[in-house]
Amino acid sequence: MALMDKYVTKLDSLDFKKMYNNDFLLTWEKTKDELEAVFTVAEALKELRVNNISSKIFDSGLGISLFRDNSTRTRFSFASACNLLGLEVQDLDEGKSQIAHGETVRETANMISFMADVIGIRDDMYIGKGNTYMRDVSKYVQEGNAEGTLEQRPTLVSLQCDIDHPTQCMADALHIINEFGGIENLKGKKIAMSWAYSPSYGKPLSVPQGIIGLLTRFGMDVVLAHPEGYEVMNEVEEIAMKNAKESGGSFTKTNSMEEAFKDADIVYPKSWAPFIAMEKRTDLYAKGDKAGINSLEKELLAQNAEHKDWQCTEELMKTTKDGKALYLHCLPADISGLSCEVGEVDASVFDRYRKPLYREASYKPYAIASMIFLSKIKNPQGVLSMLEKNNKSRKIK
Amino acid sequence: MALMDKYVTKLDSLDFKKMYNNDFLLTWEKTKDELEAVFTVAEALKELRVNNISSKIFDSGLGISLFRDNSTRTRFSFASACNLLGLEVQDLDEGKSQIAHGETVRETANMISFMADVIGIRDDMYIGKGNTYMRDVSKYVQEGNAEGTLEQRPTLVSLQCDIDHPTQCMADALHIINEFGGIENLKGKKIAMSWAYSPSYGKPLSVPQGIIGLLTRFGMDVVLAHPEGYEVMNEVEEIAMKNAKESGGSFTKTNSMEEAFKDADIVYPKSWAPFIAMEKRTDLYAKGDKAGINSLEKELLAQNAEHKDWQCTEELMKTTKDGKALYLHCLPADISGLSCEVGEVDASVFDRYRKPLYREASYKPYAIASMIFLSKIKNPQGVLSMLEKNNKSRKIK
Amino acid sequence: MALMDKYVTKLDSLDFKKMYNNDFLLTWEKTKDELEAVFTVAEALKELRVNNISSKIFDSGLGISLFRDNSTRTRFSFASACNLLGLEVQDLDEGKSQIAHGETVRETANMISFMADVIGIRDDMYIGKGNTYMRDVSKYVQEGNAEGTLEQRPTLVSLQCDIDHPTQCMADALHIINEFGGIENLKGKKIAMSWAYSPSYGKPLSVPQGIIGLLTRFGMDVVLAHPEGYEVMNEVEEIAMKNAKESGGSFTKTNSMEEAFKDADIVYPKSWAPFIAMEKRTDLYAKGDKAGINSLEKELLAQNAEHKDWQCTEELMKTTKDGKALYLHCLPADISGLSCEVGEVDASVFDRYRKPLYREASYKPYAIASMIFLSKIKNPQGVLSMLEKNNKSRKIK
Repeated sequence: MALMDKYVTKLDSLDFKKMYNNDFLLTWEKTKDELEAVFTVAEALKELRVNNISSKIFDSGLGISLFRDNSTRTRFSFASACNLLGLEVQDLDEGKSQIAHGETVRETANMISFMADVIGIRDDMYIGKGNTYMRDVSKYVQEGNAEGTLEQRPTLVSLQCDIDHPTQCMADALHIINEFGGIENLKGKKIAMSWAYSPSYGKPLSVPQGIIGLLTRFGMDVVLAHPEGYEVMNEVEEIAMKNAKESGGSFTKTNSMEEAFKDADIVYPKSWAPFIAMEKRTDLYAKGDKAGINSLEKELLAQNAEHKDWQCTEELMKTTKDGKALYLHCLPADISGLSCEVGEVDASVFDRYRKPLYREASYKPYAIASMIFLSKIKNPQGVLSMLEKNNKSRKIK
Repeated sequence: MALMDKYVTKLDSLDFKKMYNNDFLLTWEKTKDELEAVFTVAEALKELRVNNISSKIFDSGLGISLFRDNSTRTRFSFASACNLLGLEVQDLDEGKSQIAHGETVRETANMISFMADVIGIRDDMYIGKGNTYMRDVSKYVQEGNAEGTLEQRPTLVSLQCDIDHPTQCMADALHIINEFGGIENLKGKKIAMSWAYSPSYGKPLSVPQGIIGLLTRFGMDVVLAHPEGYEVMNEVEEIAMKNAKESGGSFTKTNSMEEAFKDADIVYPKSWAPFIAMEKRTDLYAKGDKAGINSLEKELLAQNAEHKDWQCTEELMKTTKDGKALYLHCLPADISGLSCEVGEVDASVFDRYRKPLYREASYKPYAIASMIFLSKIKNPQGVLSMLEKNNKSRKIK
Repeated sequence: MALMDKYVTKLDSLDFKKMYNNDFLLTWEKTKDELEAVFTVAEALKELRVNNISSKIFDSGLGISLFRDNSTRTRFSFASACNLLGLEVQDLDEGKSQIAHGETVRETANMISFMADVIGIRDDMYIGKGNTYMRDVSKYVQEGNAEGTLEQRPTLVSLQCDIDHPTQCMADALHIINEFGGIENLKGKKIAMSWAYSPSYGKPLSVPQGIIGLLTRFGMDVVLAHPEGYEVMNEVEEIAMKNAKESGGSFTKTNSMEEAFKDADIVYPKSWAPFIAMEKRTDLYAKGDKAGINSLEKELLAQNAEHKDWQCTEELMKTTKDGKALYLHCLPADISGLSCEVGEVDASVFDRYRKPLYREASYKPYAIASMIFLSKIKNPQGVLSMLEKNNKSRKIK
């Protein structure tokens, strides 16, 4: 039996036609079939690579990355995904470009895309901006393609916006699917997406929002826990609620970390900034109000410090299902006594889960590659089978 | 009939033997046949790409870029061109190198070129420096190749110097050739290369110089318009004059934007700094005279401000041929009311020409790829035909 | 006869099994057979390239570079080597990453390596740190591979640490092997590795240490010369002593440049900082003691200035073997009257040896590619022959 058979069979059972020539910005814009197609192709690409079979679908072409915030794993994941498919990464470093020199978003989007097959953007800092910017870029390159400026339509992949972090959350989902032995086994499992204390501040909301927006699709019991004042975007909570209803799971909120962790199968304790504070900060940045920003920072740190008890401790872990909930984190974590005095998680907890945490991260390149693949290839089943049949070595042995 | 036939036939009629293993620095160093060969191969490479046929001529090899000024479109155009032909781009970031640490140009040129097939340089800021630097690099890598340091001779492609901007102007030319339905139709067409007001200062002279040096080759009536004091390099004006005589066109100068635009088929309104100011600035930079530089900046801005009436307005556009002259710009433009209060062009004019402007820019990667191709391939006709026959997909469908 | 035959025959006579799936950090960790395997594969890869035969062994994959110090030639050599074998370079720019944000070395090492086949690190500034860091990274990625985070084990190649500069020294060795017509001809040749005056300070010790640690392997008479106070690491001197004994050569020390140069076949005059000063500086940096660093800098410059007579002059060159010793340098050199007033070498000496110096540098990409090749390919003889037989053009002609 061919390696690709099971993936092809799975894909045959799914409807994902609309992913062709499309973007990946928010998981809740995709049908469940489409999400499953992403998981399936990600696993298939991984299988090919493990078996040293080339999965290059491009002979030339560029993958453009634009990081408006520092990044290690997402940067290298995007580069890995592009390279795996045959695209060369070109980073748009805004500092080296003429963007400050009066270019519009429409103009820049087209000027960098003459031979771009994919554009990956990380823009997570300012509320109401990142996702909008990505949609603008997408609109303009589609227009450029229609007008004849661009011979191809570059696919937009969000590498984290102000609302969602789809490549992270899809990698997280791939991880738990593998840990629990199949997507069907997620039903009824309890996950605690919990705020946790950090001595730094202003961390994006996109991970907790992305998690409650995605994992409610699979019939899970998703609990969002945070201290009062650390609310996430209301719109995303409503999506989570709707998802849970449709999938036969649940979405609940609590101001108690203990309650969230109780009997949880999975815990995701992580710091984030209050949505309203991020909104305020976005306004202050827009006004260039440095004094305001500084005083907001102090406020936020003081607010965080009131919740030092929100830590993922050994004691708390013991209260989870059989004391063995799967611990998730998007990394890097603030580890008490290691990267900071007091942080999100006890060093011993983190250390016990280090291997699965690294594995969790290792799905990201495949998740990204899968998103690109499904946007570029009309008949993924046929192409996966063809790649296996061609059996070109990834590396000569 | 094969896709490549018409390009092969055209190339068969041209003499471009000397382009093999040669650089591309100034358009007026090339014969008219050679320029036509660049246009032809650019169109052929575009045709291959549109038809999803790989035009890789390199299996490995580096394309080195060195940008001494910020750049978006030229940077991505160079990267696109290299990638299209199979070269990987490596940027020589002088800040990260040891160049300050006592290396000579000869040494650096050789040390970065061990596996470099092409070196693209942008060095347009200082009068008398950029072009000279490129010639030095070219001389030294040829020497390195002859001496056995380098196994190949890296091709130098100017990505803009103090004198010419050949990749931009060749892309501009490709654009108007396409708009007017053939190079033969340019004869007798009037183009106004005109200074325009900008609230910034010190923009390079290489575009106006490049345009008058190139478009006078095709029998066009080229008018250079600018306020008194904004003269370009005298040597380039003489070249334009000589070109016009030889091609049966004309080259005239005026201090009136109105006169230049009157009945023009094409207009290219764009700001630039006076040649003598740029010379002065180059000296001041060499001396490290900060106070001098600052006071020159103020002078130049004040001088610009005296010519706010030099704008490409709707009124002025109406005076062009049938009120419909083709509007050109190398981008980004200073658009009145959009990127600045008062700038080079009315927003409504710019907006009406946005699509052709983007198309104009989209020729640049192909122009650069063509220059590299003609330097690297002894028998372009044979190789273009072979690429078509091989019919390797650029992207699996 | 096939091009690869002589290299295959040579490799057949060597035992280098342990290089497979291994790192290259210090030359003295390798057997003499293993060093000869590196030389042989480097020459074979060069032969293939000169004959326009592709030596790509990877269809996709990343080569990660991490430069903790500025670099031109090593950066481009690493990029060239990766490109030659089919790997795309991704630079880990620590400024753009989240490393400051609480990541451990273990975490970063894994997070950048999902699809990394090789990691090249330059970390030469701090005594006791660079080599240790590389070993940590290697340990962690091997662990990651064993744990299933990484599907492949990235090969570590030191691009210069605090102890050795193996890619430089192996390139230097390749150069002298070629100049003297074979590795067997190095026996009994005298090389002077000598300190030389420089107006800058704090240059790494890795080159002199690497040279005495490597060239004592080949039966050469290696003389280390420096003013009192400029001692190198004691451990490396002991290795040189042991090497010399084993290889039938000698290792001696002197505080006289004249003595070292006398009748030398090869001279390598180069500035470096005293080991104890580098240790002191490392401590000061660790403490963040800026005042201490500044005063140490002044001290070191003053100490250097006491030894301005340590220059490679024409007079000194006359005292070497037949007045014609081969002059080596890792470049860039401090050239008297050119890059500085008084420096390591007379301009006329440097100029006379410019061609061989550039050639010396040109071996570096092949040395690096060879190290990667031998780590990745179990049967180099078979693969080299196969590459020749496949005869894929590096560049279409």
